[in-house]
Amino acid sequence: MFNEKLPKIWYGGDYNPEQWDEEVWDEDVRMFKLAGIDVATLNVFSWALNQPDENTYHFEALDATIDRLYENGIYTCLGTSTAAHPAWMAKKYPDVLRVDFNGRKRKFGGRHNSCPNSPTYRTYSERMAGKLAELYKDHPAVLVWHVNNEYGGYCYCDQCAEAFREWLKERYVTIEAVNKVWNTPFWGHTFYEWDEIVPPNELSEEWGANNTNFQGISLDYRRFQSDSLLESFKLERDAIRPHTPEIPITTNLMGLYQELDYFKWAKEMDVVSWDNYPSIDTPESMTAMTHDLMRGVKNGQPFMLMEQTPSQQNWQDYNALKRPGVMRLWSYQSIAHGADTVLFFQLRRSIGATEKYHGAVIEHVGHENTRVFRETAKLGEELQQLSGKLVDARIPAKVAIVFDWENRWAIDLSSGPSIALDYVKEVHKFYNAFYKQHIQVDMIGVEDDLTKYDIVIAPVLYMVKENYAQKLEAFVHNGGTFVTTFFSGIVNESDLVTLGGYPGELRNLLGIWSEEIDALHPDQKNRMVMKERHGNLEGDYECNILFDLIHSEGAEVVAEYGTDFYQGMPVVTKNCFGSGEAWYIASSPDEDFLEDFAANLCEEKGIHPLLEADAGIEVSNRVKDGNSYLFVLNHSDEKRDFHLGDKEKKDALTQKVMTGTVTIEPKEVMILE
Amino acid sequence: MFNEKLPKIWYGGDYNPEQWDEEVWDEDVRMFKLAGIDVATLNVFSWALNQPDENTYHFEALDATIDRLYENGIYTCLGTSTAAHPAWMAKKYPDVLRVDFNGRKRKFGGRHNSCPNSPTYRTYSERMAGKLAELYKDHPAVLVWHVNNEYGGYCYCDQCAEAFREWLKERYVTIEAVNKVWNTPFWGHTFYEWDEIVPPNELSEEWGANNTNFQGISLDYRRFQSDSLLESFKLERDAIRPHTPEIPITTNLMGLYQELDYFKWAKEMDVVSWDNYPSIDTPESMTAMTHDLMRGVKNGQPFMLMEQTPSQQNWQDYNALKRPGVMRLWSYQSIAHGADTVLFFQLRRSIGATEKYHGAVIEHVGHENTRVFRETAKLGEELQQLSGKLVDARIPAKVAIVFDWENRWAIDLSSGPSIALDYVKEVHKFYNAFYKQHIQVDMIGVEDDLTKYDIVIAPVLYMVKENYAQKLEAFVHNGGTFVTTFFSGIVNESDLVTLGGYPGELRNLLGIWSEEIDALHPDQKNRMVMKERHGNLEGDYECNILFDLIHSEGAEVVAEYGTDFYQGMPVVTKNCFGSGEAWYIASSPDEDFLEDFAANLCEEKGIHPLLEADAGIEVSNRVKDGNSYLFVLNHSDEKRDFHLGDKEKKDALTQKVMTGTVTIEPKEVMILE
Amino acid sequence: MFNEKLPKIWYGGDYNPEQWDEEVWDEDVRMFKLAGIDVATLNVFSWALNQPDENTYHFEALDATIDRLYENGIYTCLGTSTAAHPAWMAKKYPDVLRVDFNGRKRKFGGRHNSCPNSPTYRTYSERMAGKLAELYKDHPAVLVWHVNNEYGGYCYCDQCAEAFREWLKERYVTIEAVNKVWNTPFWGHTFYEWDEIVPPNELSEEWGANNTNFQGISLDYRRFQSDSLLESFKLERDAIRPHTPEIPITTNLMGLYQELDYFKWAKEMDVVSWDNYPSIDTPESMTAMTHDLMRGVKNGQPFMLMEQTPSQQNWQDYNALKRPGVMRLWSYQSIAHGADTVLFFQLRRSIGATEKYHGAVIEHVGHENTRVFRETAKLGEELQQLSGKLVDARIPAKVAIVFDWENRWAIDLSSGPSIALDYVKEVHKFYNAFYKQHIQVDMIGVEDDLTKYDIVIAPVLYMVKENYAQKLEAFVHNGGTFVTTFFSGIVNESDLVTLGGYPGELRNLLGIWSEEIDALHPDQKNRMVMKERHGNLEGDYECNILFDLIHSEGAEVVAEYGTDFYQGMPVVTKNCFGSGEAWYIASSPDEDFLEDFAANLCEEKGIHPLLEADAGIEVSNRVKDGNSYLFVLNHSDEKRDFHLGDKEKKDALTQKVMTGTVTIEPKEVMILE
Repeated sequence: MFNEKLPKIWYGGDYNPEQWDEEVWDEDVRMFKLAGIDVATLNVFSWALNQPDENTYHFEALDATIDRLYENGIYTCLGTSTAAHPAWMAKKYPDVLRVDFNGRKRKFGGRHNSCPNSPTYRTYSERMAGKLAELYKDHPAVLVWHVNNEYGGYCYCDQCAEAFREWLKERYVTIEAVNKVWNTPFWGHTFYEWDEIVPPNELSEEWGANNTNFQGISLDYRRFQSDSLLESFKLERDAIRPHTPEIPITTNLMGLYQELDYFKWAKEMDVVSWDNYPSIDTPESMTAMTHDLMRGVKNGQPFMLMEQTPSQQNWQDYNALKRPGVMRLWSYQSIAHGADTVLFFQLRRSIGATEKYHGAVIEHVGHENTRVFRETAKLGEELQQLSGKLVDARIPAKVAIVFDWENRWAIDLSSGPSIALDYVKEVHKFYNAFYKQHIQVDMIGVEDDLTKYDIVIAPVLYMVKENYAQKLEAFVHNGGTFVTTFFSGIVNESDLVTLGGYPGELRNLLGIWSEEIDALHPDQKNRMVMKERHGNLEGDYECNILFDLIHSEGAEVVAEYGTDFYQGMPVVTKNCFGSGEAWYIASSPDEDFLEDFAANLCEEKGIHPLLEADAGIEVSNRVKDGNSYLFVLNHSDEKRDFHLGDKEKKDALTQKVMTGTVTIEPKEVMILE
Repeated sequence: MFNEKLPKIWYGGDYNPEQWDEEVWDEDVRMFKLAGIDVATLNVFSWALNQPDENTYHFEALDATIDRLYENGIYTCLGTSTAAHPAWMAKKYPDVLRVDFNGRKRKFGGRHNSCPNSPTYRTYSERMAGKLAELYKDHPAVLVWHVNNEYGGYCYCDQCAEAFREWLKERYVTIEAVNKVWNTPFWGHTFYEWDEIVPPNELSEEWGANNTNFQGISLDYRRFQSDSLLESFKLERDAIRPHTPEIPITTNLMGLYQELDYFKWAKEMDVVSWDNYPSIDTPESMTAMTHDLMRGVKNGQPFMLMEQTPSQQNWQDYNALKRPGVMRLWSYQSIAHGADTVLFFQLRRSIGATEKYHGAVIEHVGHENTRVFRETAKLGEELQQLSGKLVDARIPAKVAIVFDWENRWAIDLSSGPSIALDYVKEVHKFYNAFYKQHIQVDMIGVEDDLTKYDIVIAPVLYMVKENYAQKLEAFVHNGGTFVTTFFSGIVNESDLVTLGGYPGELRNLLGIWSEEIDALHPDQKNRMVMKERHGNLEGDYECNILFDLIHSEGAEVVAEYGTDFYQGMPVVTKNCFGSGEAWYIASSPDEDFLEDFAANLCEEKGIHPLLEADAGIEVSNRVKDGNSYLFVLNHSDEKRDFHLGDKEKKDALTQKVMTGTVTIEPKEVMILE
Repeated sequence: MFNEKLPKIWYGGDYNPEQWDEEVWDEDVRMFKLAGIDVATLNVFSWALNQPDENTYHFEALDATIDRLYENGIYTCLGTSTAAHPAWMAKKYPDVLRVDFNGRKRKFGGRHNSCPNSPTYRTYSERMAGKLAELYKDHPAVLVWHVNNEYGGYCYCDQCAEAFREWLKERYVTIEAVNKVWNTPFWGHTFYEWDEIVPPNELSEEWGANNTNFQGISLDYRRFQSDSLLESFKLERDAIRPHTPEIPITTNLMGLYQELDYFKWAKEMDVVSWDNYPSIDTPESMTAMTHDLMRGVKNGQPFMLMEQTPSQQNWQDYNALKRPGVMRLWSYQSIAHGADTVLFFQLRRSIGATEKYHGAVIEHVGHENTRVFRETAKLGEELQQLSGKLVDARIPAKVAIVFDWENRWAIDLSSGPSIALDYVKEVHKFYNAFYKQHIQVDMIGVEDDLTKYDIVIAPVLYMVKENYAQKLEAFVHNGGTFVTTFFSGIVNESDLVTLGGYPGELRNLLGIWSEEIDALHPDQKNRMVMKERHGNLEGDYECNILFDLIHSEGAEVVAEYGTDFYQGMPVVTKNCFGSGEAWYIASSPDEDFLEDFAANLCEEKGIHPLLEADAGIEVSNRVKDGNSYLFVLNHSDEKRDFHLGDKEKKDALTQKVMTGTVTIEPKEVMILE
C-alpha cells in the first residue's frame, strides 16, 4: 500500500513551474485548490536546470516549489529529472548520445535520448538521484519517487555492443552456446570471438520494423536493451533507497509498449505507475485490458495512473476533445481496474514546444471558467468525498489471460507464416469476450501462479519457456481449464523450434498434432463448423489468419473446418487431462465464437457475470476488507439498464440506494457498495 | 518596368546549346525565328564549362551564342551558371557539398547541391557573377540577369550549424533569449553555450516531413536557411549590380514552394520571375492564385513567367500532354494575372539525362511540323501583334487574401490538433470563392498596406506577428471588412501561445473567445446552421477539420453548429468594430458556404464581378494608362457564354468587336479592350 | 548435357547437416531414400565452418557428408560456401563489407554481404573454390559445382568507385567520351578527371527505387555491378575449372531478378540453374515465362531447377501452403519448360533463424507421415520411373519474345512519361496471349539469332542497341513477322535519344512516325477501333498507360484511337517490308486484343496450337531424338478437357493410352508421348 501518507485516491499531475514566470505560481496554487488537487509531479525534465554544468547543482527552485505546494496541502511525486540529458552533457560527453536503428549517431535533441550503457549517463543520473534523495529525504511532502520518465527506445552504439557481449557471456557463458541458440550455422554466421558480434540493426541483421535474419540475436538484443534500461532505473533506485527506505519508488510505464518486458520491470518497482493515452479508435475493452495488465505485472497490486489527458492529446492524427463526462468516466475506469491515483499530464499547458496543444487542467486561457476545468474540479471533489474507501482494494478474478513480452517479440520477429498475425490483437479478442460478459479477468505473466484460477487462456503461446508446459499440465491435471490457439508450442525461449511435431511441449496436454500451418490473406476466411451443440456454441463461425491442420491424438473434436482442402479436419478440440480440460483453437475465430465459447467455459466453471447489463456497460469489482465496490460504467451515448435483482446497493458517489432494474445515464458511473 | 529594352511580352525560354554540336545551332536560330521567339535564357547550368578548374575561365562559347542570337534578333536572359557546382569543386572542396536532413554528407551529384554557407561556394559563385557582369556589361543583348536557378533545399552541415548560431545571436543577442523563445525548459533543453545548439534534423529534433520536438528551433532554422540561400542570391546580385546598374536582376521562384519566404526574397529582386508547372490535377484556380501570389510578393508589380512547358513534363507520375490550345490558354492566364513574359523550359529537348522527356519548343524530331511547334509559333505571332500594349499593365483589386510563409511553416510544424489542416488548401478555398465569381483578388503579405482594400481575408492566421493585430484593428475601424477562421490568433512570431484565451491578440477585434478546438477525421462533418437569412447565406452548410468552440463576447452569431456536444454554439460570427466588420469562421466550411459568403461580402462592399459568365470561365482585368484589358478564358471543354450587356468591346487578339451575349469556344481566350 | 553422370531428372535439394547433431544424419539418409532423392546440394553457407580463421581450413565434416551420402546413392551438387563471408573476416578485413544504397557502411550480418570488388573477398573466395576443387576433383559423388548462391545486391563503397572508374576507362577510353554518353553538360556535370566520378546512390544522383538525375551513369553502374558480381563468379569458376574440367559449373539465378543481366551471365555458366518461388498471386503463365527465359538465356539448353519449396515459403506476407498436388504440378511445369532437375530448398527444415518456416522435405515433426513428404516421395518415384527419357530434350518454338535487361533498366530509370509502365508486365501480356493458345514461345535476348523464328515480338523495345535495327530489318525482309509497341526505338545503348523522330532506328522498318507520347493514369482508357475485320480482330478494344500519337509513313492503319483529341489517329499499324510484316501497337492493349492478335499472327504463319484444350490447361512440348513429349497441366481447380482427335498418345506417367477427348483431373499432369 503505497499511499499510506495520503490515504485517498491521489489527484493531480505533472507540473512544470520552471516553464513559467514567478507571477503565475500563486495562481497555480489557487486553481489546484479549486480543482481538489493534492499531488503534483515535479522535476521530471529539469536535469539541465538542476545541473547547469558538470560540477554545479542548483535545487533552490525545486526546494521552493515543493515547500510552496506543501504549505498549500499539495504533496509531491518527485521526479529524478533524468528523462532527458542536458545539452552541455551531449556536447562534452557524446557517449551519452544514442546510435539509432539506422546506425546514425544522434546529436542533441528530443527525449529518450540517453544511451543506457553510457558511462557518463550512468554516472550522472545515479549521482542526481542520490543528491535528490539526500536533499529531500526528510521532506514530508514527498509521497513517491518518480524515476526518469517513460523509459523507452533502443541504442545500437559501440558501448551497447560491448555491454551486449558481456550480457551474452553472463547468459550463455561460451560462444559455442551462443552459436547453438542462435543457430548460426544457418547462413554461415558462426562466431569464434565475442567481439565478432555486433548489435542487430539496419546495418547488420535487421530491417524495417521487426524484420531480422536471425531471430536469436534480435530477441536477445531486445532482452538486453530492456535490461539495460532497467539497469538505469535500478542505478537510480539504489541511489535513492538508502536515504528514504520508506518512500516507494516507481517509474511510469506505458501499458502495451512493445520494447520493454514490464513483468521483469515491475519486480524492481515498489509500485507500478502508467500513462493511459487511448487513441481515438481504441476500444474501451482494450483500455480495460491494459489496466488489468498494469495491475497484473505486479501480482494484482493497485497501481498509479500517472498520466492521462484532461481533454486532448497533441500527437495523434486527429486530436479529438474528450467529450463531456468522458474524462471522468475513464478516470473511474482506471480506478475500477486497480488505479489508486488519478494524475494528469499536465496541470498547466505549455506555451511552446511540441506538447503545447496537449490538454491540461489549466488551459492557455488561464482561468477556471472552462468545461475542462469544471469537469476536473467535479472529479476532484468526488475523490475527496470517496476518501480512503477504495484505497488498496483488490480485484478478484477466476479467469486469467497470459501475456508475455518475450513471446510477443518472438511472434513479431518471426519470418512467416503471416504478417497479419498480431499478438496483442489476438489476446484482446479473448479478453473482449469476457469483458462483454462482465467477467473479471487477470492478465498474468508466465511466472505467475496458476492455482488460484479456474480458467487460464494463453492465446498464441508461440514460445513455451522452460517448465511452463509442466506448469500448465499440473494446472489442468488439478481440474483447471486451459485454452490455447494456433501457432502455440512452437519454440523455446531461444526461438528454436521444438522438434517432433507442433504444438511441441503442449502436444501431450492438448492431445493433438498440428501437421501444417496454412496462412491466407485475412479476407480469405474458413468456417468453424460445430460437430454438435455445445452449450451456447452451435452452428457455424468464421475464422481466418492462420489455419493449423491438426490431427486429434485423443482430444475430442468440437468443431471442424468447413471448407478448403482441410475441410473436415479439426479446428476446435478439447482434451480431458487429469481432472481438467485443455482446449485448442486452430484458427483465429470471430467475435461470436469467442463470446459463446467464453460463456460456456464460465458456466461450466460456475463463474457468473458480475452483473446482468446492457451492451455498452462495463462492470468491474474491487474488494477491500470484505466490502465489495461494484463499478458500473456506461461507455455508450445512450441510457442503459442493468439489473440488481432484489439486492439493495448504495452508490458511493451519490449515496443513492437502488434495487431492481437500474438505468444509468450515458457516460455515467456508479460505484455500488 | 523591367522590359523597357524590348517593350513587348517576351517570348522564348531556356536554351542550352552547350549540350549540342555546332551544326544544330543554325537550325535553332531558324526555328526560333519561325516561332517568334525573341528571348533565350542562357548559361543556367554552365559553371563546369565556364570554369574547368580553380583558376581557368572560358566564356568564348557563351560569347558566341549571345552574339549569334543577338544578330538574329534574339535577346538574352543571362544566367549566372551557379545552379549546380562543378564536379572538380566537390572533389577539391567538399565544403560545397550539403549535409542532408538525414544527417548524411552528400557526394557530387544533382542540382540544389551547394551549401549556402560554404566558403568555397560563396567565394566562387560571387566571383563568377562578377566576372560575367564585367564581361557582358556593355552587351546590348542582355535584358535581365537570371541568378542561379530555382533556389531550394536546406543544408544541415557544421558550417550551417555555425552560421545558424551567428544568425541566432544577431536575432536574439543572448542565449537566455533563445531559451525563452524556444521554451527550452520543456524537456530540459536549456542551452548554456551557443555551440550546444545543433541544426534540427533527423539526428536531433525533427523527423519525417515537418515533425519536430521544438517548433521554435525548427521555425528559426527555416528562416535561417531561407535567409542563407537569399544571402547567396544577394552575393551574386551585389557582384553584378555595380557593372550593370540598369539591368534588372532576378532569380526564378517556384510559386507555392514551401521552403523559402518569397515575400522576403522579392524585396531583394528587381523583378519577380517564376516557373509554372501545374500538376495533372491542379485546379485552374490554384494556378491563378499562384500567379496572383507571385504578383503579390512584389506589391503587384508584373512578373516574368520564366518557365512553363510547351507540352509535357517528365517528373510527374503520369505526364499527360497539354491538350490542343491549353499551352496558349495557360500562357494567357499568366498574362491575365500579371506576367509580362512567356518563357518555356526548354527551347530544344535534351537527348540525355533526367529531363529528356520534358517538353520543348523543338522536339527530338527536330523540325517544325509538330503540333507543339505550330501552337508555339501561333502564340509567338500573337504576342508580336499585341506588341507593348499590355506591358506593365496593373491589376486592380479591392479584395486581399493574406498569405504568410512563416505562418505556413508554423502550422505545418504544429504537433496537433489535426494532420488534415493544410494552410494552402484553406487559403485556396477562400480564393476560389472569389475566383468563381470573377472578383479580382490580391495575394498579400503581412507587411503589406491594407488601406487600399475593402475586404481583407486571412485564413488560419495562426501566427500573429508584432503589431499585426493593431494593423488589422485599424483597418476594420476605418470601415474595412476582415475575415479570419478557426485556429487563428494562437501564437506569436516565435510560435509561443498568446495566453489569456484564443484567438489571442485578435480577440478584441473579433469579439469572441474560443474555449476549445475539436479535431475530427475529415470525413466527420458538422453543420453550420444559419440563424437567419443573410443575403445569399441561408439554411445549412457543412464544415469539418477543426471546430473551435467559441463564445461571443459581443459579436453577432450568424451561424451555429448543428450537431455534436457543441450544437448551438456559434460557428460564424460578425463583430462590428469601429466602422467595419470582423468575421470569424470557426470551422472549415464547404464550397457552397464560401461562395455565398464571398458574394455577400462583395455585395455589401459594392464590389461587382468583372463579368457575368458561365462556370468554367475565368476572368481577369489588367489596366494601363486608363485602358482596361479584360481577359476571358474558357478552361472548360465546351462552349461557354458571357454577357457584355450593351457595352461594346474589341478583342485585342482578333480585333473583333462584340456586345451582348458572347460565346467563347473551348480553351479559347479573349482580351477585351 | 550436364547430367551425363546421373542421366535422369535429378531429385533432391539443399541439405545442411552442419545445422544438426550427428544423430539426425542417419535418419536423413533413411528418409531421402524413402523420397527417391538422389542429389543433395551441400556446402552453400559453410565458409565460416570451413575456414575458422585466416589460415585454417577444415573440410572433414564435408568429406564425411559427401561420403555418407554417396554410399547411400546420393550425389552431390557442391557449393563453394562463399555465399556469406565469415564474421571473423568482417571484423578483421572490413573491406569485405558493402556500402549500401543509402551510403552506409554495413556491419557483419545477412547474406549477399560481400563487396564484389573487395580484395579480401576476391582473394579468399577464389582460394576457397580452388581448395574445394583440388580436394574433391576425383570424388565420384560430385555432379556439378554450385558457386556462391543467388548472387545479388549492389555495393557503393570506395573500392567499387575505383573499380567503376576502371570499368569506364575500359569501356569509353576518354573522359570526354563519358561526358558525351552521359550528356553531362545537362546540369553542368562535366567531369575533367576520372576521380570526380562517384557511384550513383542516395548521396549523389539517385533516390528511392530507380530514380536518377542521370540515366547514363545509373545505367552504367548497373552494368558495372552486374559485371563485378560476374567477375566474382568467374574468379571461382576459373579456380575450379583446371581441377575438374569435366564437371559443369553453375550458380543459381533468380528468374526475373532485376539487378543482373542474366544473358551475360549465362555465357559464363556451363549450365543455367534457377530458384523458382512464385508468389501467392503469380499467374502460372508468369512462371512459365520465367522458365522459358531461364531456358532462353542459354540458347534453349535445358536448365536446373535448383530451388523450389515443397510447400510453404516464409518471406511472403501470407505464406499459403501449396495445395495438394500443386508441388508436383509445378515441378512438371518446370520440366515441361526445360528443367532437367527438380531440387528443393530445403531437405530438412532449420530449427532457428529466418527460414525456419520455409517448407522442407523433412518437416520439424521429423517423420515421413506428412502430406508434404508423401507428395515428395510420390514425385520421387515417378521421376525414377521416367528415368532418362526426358533428359536433355529440347523445346521447339517458332515464336520468340525479346527480353533485355539493359532495356529494362533504362525503362525503369526513365523519368517520364509514366510510372505505370512496367516492362516485365508488358512482356508478360504478350507472352500470356500465346500461352493461353498453347503456342510455344522462346524468350530470347538481343544477341540471339532470329532466323529460326517466324514471329519475333519485342514489347517496349525502348533501347535499340547497335545494329539491332538492321538485324530486325533483315529478319522481316526475309519474311519474318515483327511486332513492337509504344515507347520503342527511343534511345541507344547509352540512353541517348535517337534524333529525327520516334521510333528512331525502327522508323524505316515500321513505316510510321510517332510525334508525341501521351501518358494518363492507368484508369483512363482509350479505345482501339479496328478499321475492318482482320482475322479474329474486330470491333473495339481498350488500351491504356501510354498513347503514341503516330502518323503512317507507309504502314497500313489497322486500328485507330476511338477517343480523346487523337481520335482517328492510328493505334495499330502493319508495314509490309520485304517479304515480311512489321507491326506497331501504339498503346498498351487489353488481353482480348492480344489474344486475337496472337491468334491472327499464328494463323498467318501456319503456327498451330500444340493442343486444343480448355482454359486453365497449360501445354508444352519437349522433343528428344525425334520423340515428342507433350505436357498437359491442369492448373485449375476443376476437371478440364482437351482434344487429341484421332491421334493415340501414351501418358509416360501412367502408361495409359488415350485418344479423342480426354478429361484431366484438377492439378493433374500428363506427359503424352
